[in-house]
Amino acid sequence: MAEEKSFHMTPDEFRRHGHAVVDWIADYHSRIESFPVLSQVKPGEIRASLPATPPAQGEPFDVLLKDVEKLILPGVTQWQSPNFFAYFPCNASGPGILGDLLSSGLGVQGMLWSTSPACTELETHVLDWLVTMLGLPEKFLSSSTGGGVIQDTASSAALCALLAARERATNYASNQKGCDGRIVAYASTQTHSSLQKAAMIAGIGVDNLRLIEVDENFAMRPDSLARQIEIDKNAGLVPCFVCATVGTTSSNAMDPIPKIARICREHNLWLHVDAAMSGTAALCPEFRHFQEGVELADSYNFNPHKWMFTNFDCSCFWVADRKALIQTLSILPEYLRNQATESGAVIDYRDWHIQLGRRFRSLKLWFVIRHYGIEGLQHHIRQHVQLAQGFAECVRNDSRFELAAPVPLNLVCFRHKAGDAANQTIMDRINRSGDLFLTHTKLNGKFTLRLCVGQTNTQARHVEKAWKRICQEAAKLTPG
Amino acid sequence: MAEEKSFHMTPDEFRRHGHAVVDWIADYHSRIESFPVLSQVKPGEIRASLPATPPAQGEPFDVLLKDVEKLILPGVTQWQSPNFFAYFPCNASGPGILGDLLSSGLGVQGMLWSTSPACTELETHVLDWLVTMLGLPEKFLSSSTGGGVIQDTASSAALCALLAARERATNYASNQKGCDGRIVAYASTQTHSSLQKAAMIAGIGVDNLRLIEVDENFAMRPDSLARQIEIDKNAGLVPCFVCATVGTTSSNAMDPIPKIARICREHNLWLHVDAAMSGTAALCPEFRHFQEGVELADSYNFNPHKWMFTNFDCSCFWVADRKALIQTLSILPEYLRNQATESGAVIDYRDWHIQLGRRFRSLKLWFVIRHYGIEGLQHHIRQHVQLAQGFAECVRNDSRFELAAPVPLNLVCFRHKAGDAANQTIMDRINRSGDLFLTHTKLNGKFTLRLCVGQTNTQARHVEKAWKRICQEAAKLTPG
Repeated sequence: MAEEKSFHMTPDEFRRHGHAVVDWIADYHSRIESFPVLSQVKPGEIRASLPATPPAQGEPFDVLLKDVEKLILPGVTQWQSPNFFAYFPCNASGPGILGDLLSSGLGVQGMLWSTSPACTELETHVLDWLVTMLGLPEKFLSSSTGGGVIQDTASSAALCALLAARERATNYASNQKGCDGRIVAYASTQTHSSLQKAAMIAGIGVDNLRLIEVDENFAMRPDSLARQIEIDKNAGLVPCFVCATVGTTSSNAMDPIPKIARICREHNLWLHVDAAMSGTAALCPEFRHFQEGVELADSYNFNPHKWMFTNFDCSCFWVADRKALIQTLSILPEYLRNQATESGAVIDYRDWHIQLGRRFRSLKLWFVIRHYGIEGLQHHIRQHVQLAQGFAECVRNDSRFELAAPVPLNLVCFRHKAGDAANQTIMDRINRSGDLFLTHTKLNGKFTLRLCVGQTNTQARHVEKAWKRICQEAAKLTPG
Repeated sequence: MAEEKSFHMTPDEFRRHGHAVVDWIADYHSRIESFPVLSQVKPGEIRASLPATPPAQGEPFDVLLKDVEKLILPGVTQWQSPNFFAYFPCNASGPGILGDLLSSGLGVQGMLWSTSPACTELETHVLDWLVTMLGLPEKFLSSSTGGGVIQDTASSAALCALLAARERATNYASNQKGCDGRIVAYASTQTHSSLQKAAMIAGIGVDNLRLIEVDENFAMRPDSLARQIEIDKNAGLVPCFVCATVGTTSSNAMDPIPKIARICREHNLWLHVDAAMSGTAALCPEFRHFQEGVELADSYNFNPHKWMFTNFDCSCFWVADRKALIQTLSILPEYLRNQATESGAVIDYRDWHIQLGRRFRSLKLWFVIRHYGIEGLQHHIRQHVQLAQGFAECVRNDSRFELAAPVPLNLVCFRHKAGDAANQTIMDRINRSGDLFLTHTKLNGKFTLRLCVGQTNTQARHVEKAWKRICQEAAKLTPG
């Protein structure tokens, strides 16, 4: 039969253009240190270079790829540069990129087990692997009462945990009747901002998310938490949820999980542990003490897309009681009914997160774990921690600077002693130079520089250069 | 300086393995019709083939790719097969896959404008293009009061719309105090299940999402909507939101937007228009009448990842008043502060959705639009609609079958007149054969088959074969 007219790319064209894109990416990674890490464009500059109207006719693929080089690349902040020390990392790696490419090529939508059994089963399997790899409690295994799921981000994971807690506290009634304004949740003043967003989304309200004060190491004070819960209970409110953090975004502070967990047990509150960045460190047994107490948590989250070389998005979320989560998020319209679901023998991950549709995300995670092996992952995590500790030592040994917080792992918070303006100047000059990219936070009201060692390809020479550049800028400061 | 020990894939290894993956995908698409469309594995079969423990040492990449072929492929339901007629499509295409690959390779995280200006500006630009391409109102342009953003799914888009409506109705007070149980939202009995999920998540409660009855074409009845709003207002409740659908999931019903919009105006309710699948049809001027009235909507959503050849996930969401959305979802911790944000001259898309982190999704959408051009996209949409209409004609002309709903575009709802059991049998046998994949719904309480023509590569011969196979199974039914 004659083929119909088609504008689609044929498999042979795909092969040719696909090789060109792969080559472009390989070249890009080879020359990545030649670009300014922080994009130097001004607002509107990228848009101004794009045609105002969409193309009426299709264009050759070569033109598209040239435009990525010419029009897009100047507007890219190089998250994959080994000189990227800002925020937390958002790592890519060869196996991560290629696993993701296979996911795009297969193009499956794994909302139900039956819509691609491999998408669901590989995910369950790899998340069970990770329970072992990270030394997490057995209750998070799918063979126990719990189980894991890949979410897009830690924000969504925290929201799901909060929702499950809300439902548990209200005997699943709020599903029907809506919130009644009495639900209260707890985090520390240093907890990630996504918890505030989750409280807004869940209809709990930001005022009903109590931000508990922290100690001198920026860790949540359990005594303050216990006191606030008592106050709220006495006021007739319904405490339901606590988020403890393993490695806060601001300063990598470690909340005391065992003490917090005991308070949660006493008052029957859902304990969520957010280890978005630092959770990866638990691959190495010597760093697992930071997550002590996680065996008492109701849910746990860490992001392989941050520090475990797995392309964004990939955020692993476990619960101890999968029924509590599913009951919170389950819907079953007729058009999604199927025999496998009715049998109860399968997991339908659409009931484990906000979205219905879902990508085959476990492929990239599986590829990363198999490419590196536990040995390779541990090697690079240890290397990053060692480099960050070395940097902290440089700060400690330089009388112009001071550390602003403990350095448990790979984030160094530090400042020049000359005050906020001096630190802002150092950061702005370095970032404008494009040599490296640093960001800041405020600790005890003071402007503080953050240097996070976690980008896939960061080695000793990059951290050494970072310290050298910081010292250069410090030397240029006019004595105040 | 000596390079340190590394387990990373080098750029040259990436090039070699990347070519192999591209070739594998090209071959996969060439032989995709040789696989059963619906995966034939049993629950647990894929997991049973995987090693119980994670690898201690890394493995060669070739082994991984072989395992995809051997262990994963049998568990894949072939969403990219031209014989996939189930649910709504979830399309991939060459330019979509390669745009996504570039996004993985660049590995940027676009939470803020400053974290990659191109990620934000290309997205704004392409969503402005689409306003023109789809004949949407100018108020959705970023140069007006509104603007567009790429969400992951229509579920998340609907949730954001509902949250913005909730905040507007309560004078932005619920952010602080939480919901008070008086908020009410409206959809039809045929509206996508994600609206119920959104009501649960937002703390509104499923009972406070009123499901309005539909007419004989499964479209929302505006008179019933108006009546319910009056009842709720008289009861002291606070109506805030209506979702109208252009092409429901169950039967592709078209809600009467102009009439619904007038009611929303009268009562100051937020009107969200969900056109997740059918919105793509508006690329063709002759199909735009279905979205008449969208100029009165507060928000609008369609999914290029369904019918516009753009890999999952890519769901386009516009609002008429971006301030209302941003005010609902904005958070600004110190560690995300930066000059560009403070200047007010840029968009920070993290305030436009649930998540904080975000992928460079606009690349694949840009690639699709430029590869096909408006002409190419229109050609394939028209072809799909024509094929579905041809199939509907076959049903109409066969006295054993009947159409179960109008066929406005590319979804045909039909049934054998022998009753529910017969239709279930036809569907199960066809799906088990692997020749094609169909799903079902219930309309007026009756089991109804759904055939959606929208997969990228579906041509006349595939639809003809589908009808032939259905007739074969119908002929096998035991009479009575």
